[in-house]
Amino acid sequence: MHHESVNEWEQESKASAEDGLAAPARVGIVGLGLIGGSLALRLNSEGCEVLAWNPRQHPYEHAREVGIQCFDELSELAQAKPDVLVLCNPLAAMPEVLDVLKTSLDMEHTTLTDVGSVKGIVRDQVKKAGLESCYVGAHPMCGNELSGWKAANEHLFHNALWAVTFCDHTDYRRVMAVASMITRASHNRLIILDDKTHDRAAALISHMPHVAATALINMLVDSSDRNIAAALSAGSWRDMTRVALTDPNRTKAMVEENSGDVAYLLRQYAERLMSISYALDAHVASGTNRTEADREIDQFFSDGDEYRAYKAAQKRKQQNGEQTEVTFDTLHIDPENWRQDMLESAKRGEHIVRFTSAYRAIIENGAISQH
Amino acid sequence: MHHESVNEWEQESKASAEDGLAAPARVGIVGLGLIGGSLALRLNSEGCEVLAWNPRQHPYEHAREVGIQCFDELSELAQAKPDVLVLCNPLAAMPEVLDVLKTSLDMEHTTLTDVGSVKGIVRDQVKKAGLESCYVGAHPMCGNELSGWKAANEHLFHNALWAVTFCDHTDYRRVMAVASMITRASHNRLIILDDKTHDRAAALISHMPHVAATALINMLVDSSDRNIAAALSAGSWRDMTRVALTDPNRTKAMVEENSGDVAYLLRQYAERLMSISYALDAHVASGTNRTEADREIDQFFSDGDEYRAYKAAQKRKQQNGEQTEVTFDTLHIDPENWRQDMLESAKRGEHIVRFTSAYRAIIENGAISQH
Repeated sequence: MHHESVNEWEQESKASAEDGLAAPARVGIVGLGLIGGSLALRLNSEGCEVLAWNPRQHPYEHAREVGIQCFDELSELAQAKPDVLVLCNPLAAMPEVLDVLKTSLDMEHTTLTDVGSVKGIVRDQVKKAGLESCYVGAHPMCGNELSGWKAANEHLFHNALWAVTFCDHTDYRRVMAVASMITRASHNRLIILDDKTHDRAAALISHMPHVAATALINMLVDSSDRNIAAALSAGSWRDMTRVALTDPNRTKAMVEENSGDVAYLLRQYAERLMSISYALDAHVASGTNRTEADREIDQFFSDGDEYRAYKAAQKRKQQNGEQTEVTFDTLHIDPENWRQDMLESAKRGEHIVRFTSAYRAIIENGAISQH
Repeated sequence: MHHESVNEWEQESKASAEDGLAAPARVGIVGLGLIGGSLALRLNSEGCEVLAWNPRQHPYEHAREVGIQCFDELSELAQAKPDVLVLCNPLAAMPEVLDVLKTSLDMEHTTLTDVGSVKGIVRDQVKKAGLESCYVGAHPMCGNELSGWKAANEHLFHNALWAVTFCDHTDYRRVMAVASMITRASHNRLIILDDKTHDRAAALISHMPHVAATALINMLVDSSDRNIAAALSAGSWRDMTRVALTDPNRTKAMVEENSGDVAYLLRQYAERLMSISYALDAHVASGTNRTEADREIDQFFSDGDEYRAYKAAQKRKQQNGEQTEVTFDTLHIDPENWRQDMLESAKRGEHIVRFTSAYRAIIENGAISQH
């Protein structure tokens, strides 16, 4: 690893902005909700030409005021040949949207992508519509509990990291088109990986925990002590159940889109909880004698220390401000083996800041710990 | 139920302040850490005479400046005959502290209480020291991630609710002594219940969820996708794992103090997670056919709707400000049957605002829903 100051890196990245990896000139957005609207506003204020379509036209007046071109028909947006077309519609609308695009999209010119939090299920639908050859999956880590155009704002994407996903047939040039939109136009970082790994990791970090939070409030509601428990509740309970208070139908839909991964992880999680519960019982039974159960309990409470250290370091970094020296490095990608190189980089915890040429990227180290 | 405006209630409560349930004149605090220090500062600024002892004397200079009387020896504090003595020392120090108190405390005059988050284990130790006849358990719902006198401040107890706990032998007059300190001096609300119910509810709302959060970060750390998962993490993960980032030894100690209840609830929780995981698998297997599994999934995501409605109502109340009309009622307590009356009131979700006479209290309705 070598260290570069932010300034050095800025200079290098400016110097290389002309080698074909500039931001796409025209980006199309399907669906001006919270995510689509925020992305449209951000790209628009960064100088992209933004084209948009929304099934209801209530956002159009304001969108047009700021300079976004709005279309009456989705097919017209497709025919306007954006360089990248981003599907920000709900998953439920995907079949209908793809049905229009399969007859109106110039697949040679336009790269198709989306912003869904589960990737496998979107690719299946894109494939069914015959649009896979121009498709790359994408999932930006941003959002809040709001929805709709009214809640949209360009700052939603501030510091967002995106996951960009491929399959065995993905064309590298399509990955670059989406990556350049993310890094050059939206000024965000990204990781590049296959759908399956993405969906498994998303289940671990988001979908499964949503189920866990939901099960917690179900435990409370079903308890005869529920009012007493609610009276005793404090910050830990509030934080752990916050996501269970959002629209449960939205959570259910999200979980069902990734059922297989979620179900598998729930069993692993439940087994861990069962195991520690037996250790706690054994701890009571053994009194003051130190037993195998006590060692299991100790292990359980120290297992996550690496993650605790990582979060503590992140916090220190934030407190010291963004001017702290950041560690950058260069990732060299083998054109013959780019899928594996990208996936391994993501697994090492590297976040791509931008590409300096088609097969060379500036990366920032975001690993939990350095083995 | 009848409605009273806050003003009517204020007048009534002022009118009854002279009937023997006034705040205790002298309160002793053992341990000037975050909780003990904050309580001492609060009671002191509310006009109580506050006496304190801390094993290390570094808080004494500042404490004395604000008017708190500090003692060199714990026995001297006990011999100064506070009306209520509040044990705010760590549980580990309890045997040593109780050992001093059993020879120095005037058990007839002083009511002993504590602030621990697990009640059964404290009573056992108090009993062992022969001090049970003057003891009432207490557990204020307040705190933060800090510790020590430096972090102490009187606002920590703002709007706190306390649980006050009894056993079969508890003297009602001791309950009143602690209750009047809570309502008249600290200006907080309380519920009154037995140790076992308290500890079971605390396990549900706090100790078990702490284990659940810890198991989540263990899942992440043990995953080969951990850096990818961490990159994809957003607000839901951050909130659900926050408590797992605090000192794991403190969490471990808390869980071990209530092992039996935590272990039992962990198994119930794990069984719920197992059950929904099988339903999700069956959902995948059944394709578009609606099956029993789908009904189970629907039920799982709607089970907590009553709690969601309760939290939404709480939020509306907060947004409308504290001047919103509050529903008060009067609780009449049968002197022969006070334990059951108090417990049932707590189970109904009633929070005691203050006592207007020994067997009559003003209560506020805090129930999840009204059955």
